[in-house]
Amino acid sequence: MYIGIDLGGTNIAAGCVGGDGKILSKSSMPTLKGRSYKEIVKDMATLCERVTRGAGLCMSDIKAIGIGSPGTVDSENGVVVYAGNLRFKKAPVAAEIKKYFDLPVYMENDANAAAYGEYIVCGHDADSFVFITLGTGVGGGIIINKKIYRGFNSAGAEIGHICMEMNGIECTCGRRGCFERYASVTALREQTSEMMKKHPESSMNKWVKRKGHVSGRTAFECAKAGDEAAVEVKNNYIRYIAEGITNIVNIFQPEILVIGGGISKEGDVLLEPIKEFVYKYDFNKYMPKTDIRIAKLFNDAGIVGAAMAAKSNIERH
Amino acid sequence: MYIGIDLGGTNIAAGCVGGDGKILSKSSMPTLKGRSYKEIVKDMATLCERVTRGAGLCMSDIKAIGIGSPGTVDSENGVVVYAGNLRFKKAPVAAEIKKYFDLPVYMENDANAAAYGEYIVCGHDADSFVFITLGTGVGGGIIINKKIYRGFNSAGAEIGHICMEMNGIECTCGRRGCFERYASVTALREQTSEMMKKHPESSMNKWVKRKGHVSGRTAFECAKAGDEAAVEVKNNYIRYIAEGITNIVNIFQPEILVIGGGISKEGDVLLEPIKEFVYKYDFNKYMPKTDIRIAKLFNDAGIVGAAMAAKSNIERH
Repeated sequence: MYIGIDLGGTNIAAGCVGGDGKILSKSSMPTLKGRSYKEIVKDMATLCERVTRGAGLCMSDIKAIGIGSPGTVDSENGVVVYAGNLRFKKAPVAAEIKKYFDLPVYMENDANAAAYGEYIVCGHDADSFVFITLGTGVGGGIIINKKIYRGFNSAGAEIGHICMEMNGIECTCGRRGCFERYASVTALREQTSEMMKKHPESSMNKWVKRKGHVSGRTAFECAKAGDEAAVEVKNNYIRYIAEGITNIVNIFQPEILVIGGGISKEGDVLLEPIKEFVYKYDFNKYMPKTDIRIAKLFNDAGIVGAAMAAKSNIERH
Repeated sequence: MYIGIDLGGTNIAAGCVGGDGKILSKSSMPTLKGRSYKEIVKDMATLCERVTRGAGLCMSDIKAIGIGSPGTVDSENGVVVYAGNLRFKKAPVAAEIKKYFDLPVYMENDANAAAYGEYIVCGHDADSFVFITLGTGVGGGIIINKKIYRGFNSAGAEIGHICMEMNGIECTCGRRGCFERYASVTALREQTSEMMKKHPESSMNKWVKRKGHVSGRTAFECAKAGDEAAVEVKNNYIRYIAEGITNIVNIFQPEILVIGGGISKEGDVLLEPIKEFVYKYDFNKYMPKTDIRIAKLFNDAGIVGAAMAAKSNIERH
């Protein structure tokens, strides 16, 4: 049995996870970011005990703890090198949690952990696998030869930061035109707001008045009801995602590529036109095509992935 | 001792290569493309004997033959699945050359072979390595865990076909705005010609009149002499390359990235501003940076890489 912890900017989520990737029990607490890593790790330890009890087990049944953290993570040494969101700098999280439990602790970047979770559950043991998550930003993870690919400095797999428009929209990373400025849910909301202003007659305006705010669902729902401006927003947004995925496919030609994040719950409305675009435009006319799918785990991916990465790590050593 | 063959659209080049990647002798013949694969393989066999004799050896000293071919190559079965340039479709090149020599034969895509050659000679055994070649198009190869990365269908590593401008210049691949439409030498020549028209006073016009044609060197040479329009062409071209390399670095964070192709002979004039841009804009503020270098082997990379890939393949089996 393993524990997976998904340390987020808002919540710390933890789960007791079986060797097959199934969650037996889970729980969460607010991160209350701004606190020191020591205070946050104390809450992590409380969660570890809580989810273990929740699964009807005791800590001696746990083989390892895996933690997914935002930012740059040094897996080798169990240190969060830098996580702006949490205001962590060189935080020795693994060493701190070992003060509570005498167990192997494995740390991973959160997007990599989520990718690994989806890989375990819907990766079918593929030799090459890419996970793209469309959320506040665009994140991702790459699994090559059944292992998480990080680059030599653990800073790789920043799929959201591929420039798709050289003089495009400014990105938080300092460049312009990054994939995430077009394909994130943040970008979709901006695209929706812009179109609403251009088309005051669009039903999106009524939708937003009713719901109180523009969301990632605004354009998709109004498009389903036949609103032309909404259809345009939806189609453009899907094209942005598809262009980015075609780039990834041309580089990796992964056996499986999985799309996650809240917006992926749109299912086939999102998936089918993406597949059509990628299969038409990817640089591969004669060989089998990448299997493109919607994620299965959603919010649990981080917990499952962190736990399974910890499992794989103790099995390697 | 190994033989490496670099099958190109214009020439078939072969070399007798030591286990350390050093070429002992080499030779070439025209490809005369349009011929059947059997006729071309017959010439390859002649070259194998010629370079072996040239190194003072006989065929019994050769441990394996490696072949780099354009197009999509099925390494597993030694078949060129498709190479438009050579008009090959499902050509069983490895089986054909085995009719001449009872030796292990290994086939690889030419860009992958060249990448592997540069890796052997200037990759320092890195766990992650990317090679980008700026020529007629933009090609590349990716080495992960000391092995060539191809994707599940052998069609991966098409680094030239990352869209950098969603409604940009049309590409031969059917998309718009691909990296190679901005960063290849073909693109540089177009950018030079365009600027020459806009600036008839530019010394580039005189240069071209003297040399007879626009080349990849036109802008670089006139820029060195202080021509403003040429400086603009050069700077824009370098920025295009740097944007594309930043994308690659954000994905792979490779330990070493090597730039090859004829234009890379410009050396530091090309390399230094690229490094400055990439190190400023890559998504990595706290970890060590990718070592970006100019290629060492140039035209010999394909021969060395094919031979060394053949060596590595027999050592694995």
